[in-house]
Amino acid sequence: MQAQYTASQQAADWLAAFAATLDRRDIDAAVGLFGDESYWRDLVSWTWNIKTVEGPAQIRDLLEHTLAQVKPSAWALDGEATETDGVVEAWFTFETAVARGKGLLRLKGGRCWTLLTTMVELKGFEEKKGERRIAGAEHGVHPGRKTWAELRAEEQATLGYSVQPDVVVIGGGQGGIALGARLRRLGVPTIIVEKNARAGDSWRNRYKSLCLHDPVWYDHLPYMPFPDDWPVFAPKDKVGDWLEAYTKIMELNYWSSTLAKNCRWDEASQRWEVTVEREGQTVVLRPKELVIALGVSGYANVPKIPGAETFLGEQHHSSKHTSSEPYRGKKCVVLGSNNSAHDICAALWENGADVTMVQRSSTHIAPSAALMELALGGLYSEQAVKNGIDHHKGDLIFASVPYKIMHTFHIPVYEEMQRREADFYARLEKAGFILDFGADGSGLFMKYLRRGSGYYIDVGASELVANGSVKLKSGVNIERIHPRSVTLTDGTELEADLIVYATGFGSMNHWLADLISPEAADRVGKVWGLGSDTPKDPGPWEGELRNMWKPTQVPHLWIHGGNLHQSRHYSQFLSLQLKARMAGIPTPVYGQAEVHHLR
Amino acid sequence: MQAQYTASQQAADWLAAFAATLDRRDIDAAVGLFGDESYWRDLVSWTWNIKTVEGPAQIRDLLEHTLAQVKPSAWALDGEATETDGVVEAWFTFETAVARGKGLLRLKGGRCWTLLTTMVELKGFEEKKGERRIAGAEHGVHPGRKTWAELRAEEQATLGYSVQPDVVVIGGGQGGIALGARLRRLGVPTIIVEKNARAGDSWRNRYKSLCLHDPVWYDHLPYMPFPDDWPVFAPKDKVGDWLEAYTKIMELNYWSSTLAKNCRWDEASQRWEVTVEREGQTVVLRPKELVIALGVSGYANVPKIPGAETFLGEQHHSSKHTSSEPYRGKKCVVLGSNNSAHDICAALWENGADVTMVQRSSTHIAPSAALMELALGGLYSEQAVKNGIDHHKGDLIFASVPYKIMHTFHIPVYEEMQRREADFYARLEKAGFILDFGADGSGLFMKYLRRGSGYYIDVGASELVANGSVKLKSGVNIERIHPRSVTLTDGTELEADLIVYATGFGSMNHWLADLISPEAADRVGKVWGLGSDTPKDPGPWEGELRNMWKPTQVPHLWIHGGNLHQSRHYSQFLSLQLKARMAGIPTPVYGQAEVHHLR
Repeated sequence: MQAQYTASQQAADWLAAFAATLDRRDIDAAVGLFGDESYWRDLVSWTWNIKTVEGPAQIRDLLEHTLAQVKPSAWALDGEATETDGVVEAWFTFETAVARGKGLLRLKGGRCWTLLTTMVELKGFEEKKGERRIAGAEHGVHPGRKTWAELRAEEQATLGYSVQPDVVVIGGGQGGIALGARLRRLGVPTIIVEKNARAGDSWRNRYKSLCLHDPVWYDHLPYMPFPDDWPVFAPKDKVGDWLEAYTKIMELNYWSSTLAKNCRWDEASQRWEVTVEREGQTVVLRPKELVIALGVSGYANVPKIPGAETFLGEQHHSSKHTSSEPYRGKKCVVLGSNNSAHDICAALWENGADVTMVQRSSTHIAPSAALMELALGGLYSEQAVKNGIDHHKGDLIFASVPYKIMHTFHIPVYEEMQRREADFYARLEKAGFILDFGADGSGLFMKYLRRGSGYYIDVGASELVANGSVKLKSGVNIERIHPRSVTLTDGTELEADLIVYATGFGSMNHWLADLISPEAADRVGKVWGLGSDTPKDPGPWEGELRNMWKPTQVPHLWIHGGNLHQSRHYSQFLSLQLKARMAGIPTPVYGQAEVHHLR
Repeated sequence: MQAQYTASQQAADWLAAFAATLDRRDIDAAVGLFGDESYWRDLVSWTWNIKTVEGPAQIRDLLEHTLAQVKPSAWALDGEATETDGVVEAWFTFETAVARGKGLLRLKGGRCWTLLTTMVELKGFEEKKGERRIAGAEHGVHPGRKTWAELRAEEQATLGYSVQPDVVVIGGGQGGIALGARLRRLGVPTIIVEKNARAGDSWRNRYKSLCLHDPVWYDHLPYMPFPDDWPVFAPKDKVGDWLEAYTKIMELNYWSSTLAKNCRWDEASQRWEVTVEREGQTVVLRPKELVIALGVSGYANVPKIPGAETFLGEQHHSSKHTSSEPYRGKKCVVLGSNNSAHDICAALWENGADVTMVQRSSTHIAPSAALMELALGGLYSEQAVKNGIDHHKGDLIFASVPYKIMHTFHIPVYEEMQRREADFYARLEKAGFILDFGADGSGLFMKYLRRGSGYYIDVGASELVANGSVKLKSGVNIERIHPRSVTLTDGTELEADLIVYATGFGSMNHWLADLISPEAADRVGKVWGLGSDTPKDPGPWEGELRNMWKPTQVPHLWIHGGNLHQSRHYSQFLSLQLKARMAGIPTPVYGQAEVHHLR
């Protein structure tokens, strides 16, 4: 008989029971529906926060603090549930007092193992899409009517001057652009401030050979997916041109060639004062909310090495290395061994330079093809699309895995990668390369979440290291720089015409210290990382990325960013938080994270 | 038992029988599967032409001339068939010797009533999309590799100069752009020549209040649909900006600010010599194929009226009327009563002008909302999308209705419109407006196909005519123009500060006479129209639009154009015809149309 109790019935029964306990405010019974090991991740819909609660006690706490305001209702399965290895998985929809939501539920032995709840839209503030789209033409006759072009020109002339925006986003890369598009749809007047001359320049200005390391299915922006002939790994300039076209099509108020100088919260007016220099002119913007979207990797880390000032060759950070062509026949030292270091070493070698990579510490190498197939293919691939998992669905499935146990899903992937690529890894090690697979063997994506660094997605450079075309000095650093050479910590001296510091990027909240104040930066605290107690990600455990896309300890200050996937997906939740505040909807934040580490 | 013979079984049986007769080259039996009233419309897949054959005798002729080369195979139903009012409708796929196709079949009483066959892709020349998409990043190391940006810059610098394009498209409006995007995907080197400074200017330069009269679901370009918040009726400048962004995203070789001066076929080289002036410099392009895409309505018709040269006010064709603002308090005479005339009258009235419309002959008025609901809603609307009919499917369903009987589907629509809008039409007639619904009551779209003129999609101006805000003189023409007035054919004199000639556009093959030669234009003959023997569309019956998207009597010369729907859909078939010729695939044309009318 058990066999006839279908996955959909199990899921429907659980959902009905959960709804019933919530309806009668029976928190004991509701908590009883969760397993001893259980996780509830909420994206804004219950908590006005991005929050994972872990285990029955925390789930109880969440319910006790939120249930009365949230007033959940209208729980309904969305499509058929599935069962795999004893885990029932089901999509569902629900409503709160103020919003509509979508979720993903996993049951083990009839009790909830993982629950994802996400906000889709605010009631009464739905996007004007599909059936709700505007007419465009105003039928009938309207003396004095203004055309779309006139209204748009008027907006561009007045917003930021005689009319103040509700939101200012500092940083017009993929993060600012994706968020800007969402806010535009929600009718929140927004200005995006970007120092470069054109949208997309933050990609165009990088090194010439750069292509996206993530595949197309993972990289769509909101609302307008790439055409179906878009390359798997798009070249940087093509991405730049797409971003530029996108800002125009989405009608963003995108202030390019504009440098943010200073941001100050003004208590009297309850608005920020954001001083920018727009094409040479100082303008003060007064938004209600301020978003910093300057990039997970925007602030160049250049180590201070004794003697650097005496160097007679050229030296620059990897972010300034645009072309490798000028270095034919030159002796080049690249300090670092992550993505940029590898890509730049390969480009220099391709252009006939003599290249040495200086590897300071162990690095995780993931061959691109294996990574795509083993780690991403299930959610983001042509096959996934054929299986009915487009990026909208992929994003939610991805989001439904609690960070606490995410590494347990990744460890077997990288074990398989090590088996499959054993020969490759052996040759790299023989060349002296110091490998790792993350502190617990959980590989690339966990490293990305925990520290945002420490890996290279191999698209060819590792072969140059393995076969000696790119020379390698590993386990060392540059100790001193001389006019025409560098000395390493093992005493080796390398001749050098060029030094590239592929030494990564500083913490995002350096931007806060610069733009607002060191005190504000400390109040916000460390940005990014999970508190996994692994290298560069000190504990205690946080359960979510620190300070990303959710309220910080500085009111009205938000941080947005991440890769294209995160910029797309989390902009949804940040935009809804901002819209709710603009619309005067109460947004009591549950479980605001404490600050354990200063910037 | 009959009731259990499902629609899908009937369709499958018919398709199997058809396939079997074709396999054994039994044309008698194949023809026997068609009803006495039957139509087979082929878009390139069987005929290398756009061709409808009508009735068993013509169907026999088509089979006799094509079957041996086409070698059809792999017939298969695509999804479930449906049955409505005794008509079974089924999608299917098939292959020919060189291509894959898709079709739509309708059976009546077990025999074929309508058959649509269309070419989807050429085997071996499939678009690089989905699973076939390019990698983008070239993994591995490649000394001397060029980046996407370098290759694109190189192409732009050389194509048309040291490297000749295979195809030149003259005219960079929606038609040229849509075709250019298709050819780009098929790897056919193409240059699009456009006289305006920016893609989209052909929309931007029109009168200020212009919005699309067709709704968004009908207007998508190939490959990149509008975002889901796109207005139902997009304002012209927004359309212009979209077209501009689209040319960049699709990486078209779009030569703006370039005027085509002359085209000459060179027998010796078997190429065209297309002389253009690009930003002041004369360039001779030498393509193998030449496409004229200058618009169904590109060549302004300005009637020669005695005394016009004595007029002291302003006079211009509707295509030159960009803003109505300067005419506040002025006396304006608008000659004409179609779309542009109505829109311009309303804009002038909204801007405080004194406006008189001069209606020369009867006009078909279709209120926009009724038109959308009654005529287009089934195939192109939010509801259609919900019913599973996106524009891809809508286009094929639309294409499957033979022109011979299309009016029979439209007559009831316009009868219903007359019933529903009886009061509106009565008030218009009371104001003196001379209405028609097409020669046979088949309304707007048939007028569009037959003559490309004679109607107004009412978005508000008719109310101004009905209530007298816009004055009307109907059944008359302007007989003579005086320095400050015009005299009408009924003797009335109207004071005038402005005369707008909303008198439409000349035949497309005027372009051919200008660019190639009057002889070539006459050899191609009349363009557009079906030979319906209704006003401005003389017989004999042609069965397809004259000369559009298919081989003309001048080898290597093609005409492309139409509204956004046609530009999207028929660019598929024109691009496949061009690609096949470039790839050296035999393209024997069946049923090339004779020329019955000179230009």
